[in-house]
Amino acid sequence: MNKKGLLVVVSAPAGCGKDTILECAFEACNNLHYSVSVTTRKARPSEEEGIHYFFKTREEFEQMIQKKELLEYTEYDGNFYGTPRKYIPEMLEAGKNVVLKIEVEGAENIKRIYPDCVRVFILPPSFEELERRLRKRGTETEETIKNRVGIAKIEMSFVKNYDYVIINADIEEAVKDFTAIVQAERLSAKRGIPVIS
Amino acid sequence: MNKKGLLVVVSAPAGCGKDTILECAFEACNNLHYSVSVTTRKARPSEEEGIHYFFKTREEFEQMIQKKELLEYTEYDGNFYGTPRKYIPEMLEAGKNVVLKIEVEGAENIKRIYPDCVRVFILPPSFEELERRLRKRGTETEETIKNRVGIAKIEMSFVKNYDYVIINADIEEAVKDFTAIVQAERLSAKRGIPVIS
Repeated sequence: MNKKGLLVVVSAPAGCGKDTILECAFEACNNLHYSVSVTTRKARPSEEEGIHYFFKTREEFEQMIQKKELLEYTEYDGNFYGTPRKYIPEMLEAGKNVVLKIEVEGAENIKRIYPDCVRVFILPPSFEELERRLRKRGTETEETIKNRVGIAKIEMSFVKNYDYVIINADIEEAVKDFTAIVQAERLSAKRGIPVIS
Repeated sequence: MNKKGLLVVVSAPAGCGKDTILECAFEACNNLHYSVSVTTRKARPSEEEGIHYFFKTREEFEQMIQKKELLEYTEYDGNFYGTPRKYIPEMLEAGKNVVLKIEVEGAENIKRIYPDCVRVFILPPSFEELERRLRKRGTETEETIKNRVGIAKIEMSFVKNYDYVIINADIEEAVKDFTAIVQAERLSAKRGIPVIS
């Protein structure tokens, strides 16, 4: 049976280690592919165009909206984030598991468009630890850190809409959790029962 | 959060490698515990009382029924199989993940009593391969083998009632599938959302 791919929606407050978890999970699984989002936020030094995001100006982003090139978009912490319309359907059809990193409101939008998507929320072990990790990153101002912790607390109220919750207390365990979710969902009978003869 | 344990119901046609998969999964996970069933069938040479089954005579089994010591019981291929009432609730309450090997009708009964249970069905890659494996076992008569393959084909119609389907084409992969299911289900938001502070 050639099963369709999974759409895995991953949300996490900034500083939860989402990118590291996904990077390790991509190394461990050979069938994980990103849906690269579009954003108006500035690239961090480690981020590459077309790999981590498509970085756009606000004008370019607004043009994409007008041309209906975005499946959904939302504003988060003063920047726009959007999901390109064209990649996801063809990847899923080809049996590829697609990972979409997206904040909580975007995840709601995606759920409406793809009701079969698997939603994973990653939490820090505590808000204190989250603040510590954001500070350690060294790329954010003190104001941004406070702001992000505040947003994280608000985002907590969305966790109930997700299918799975991973607490990133230990990166290796969190990676195993993530890959187990993808593997188990592929075996889920609700996604199609294999026929043997 | 101290989550309750999972009740994992595992069904598979005889010869699918269920016991080997579970044995390896128990080695890989430290939180898996058997609910040992009661049966009137004869012990195979490799089977131990209280580990694989509680082996009873038909009279003893009937007494257990009368004393309401069984959660459920059913007849399969001329023998009775039952689930003792007393172990499962206390193990789940203590956060232990309990594995219950049971045939398809027993699984239906358990689902009614424990609606939150996770049901896993293990399939052989083909019926031809199933027959080959049963023959290789060397403990069954030719008539029993034909009978068991016939039962397996009937059991296929129950697969749709299960949550997950594993095809045991490769034992290592099947073990990973099983442990991924247990791990993912523990992270499932429907089983309780962790609270951080």
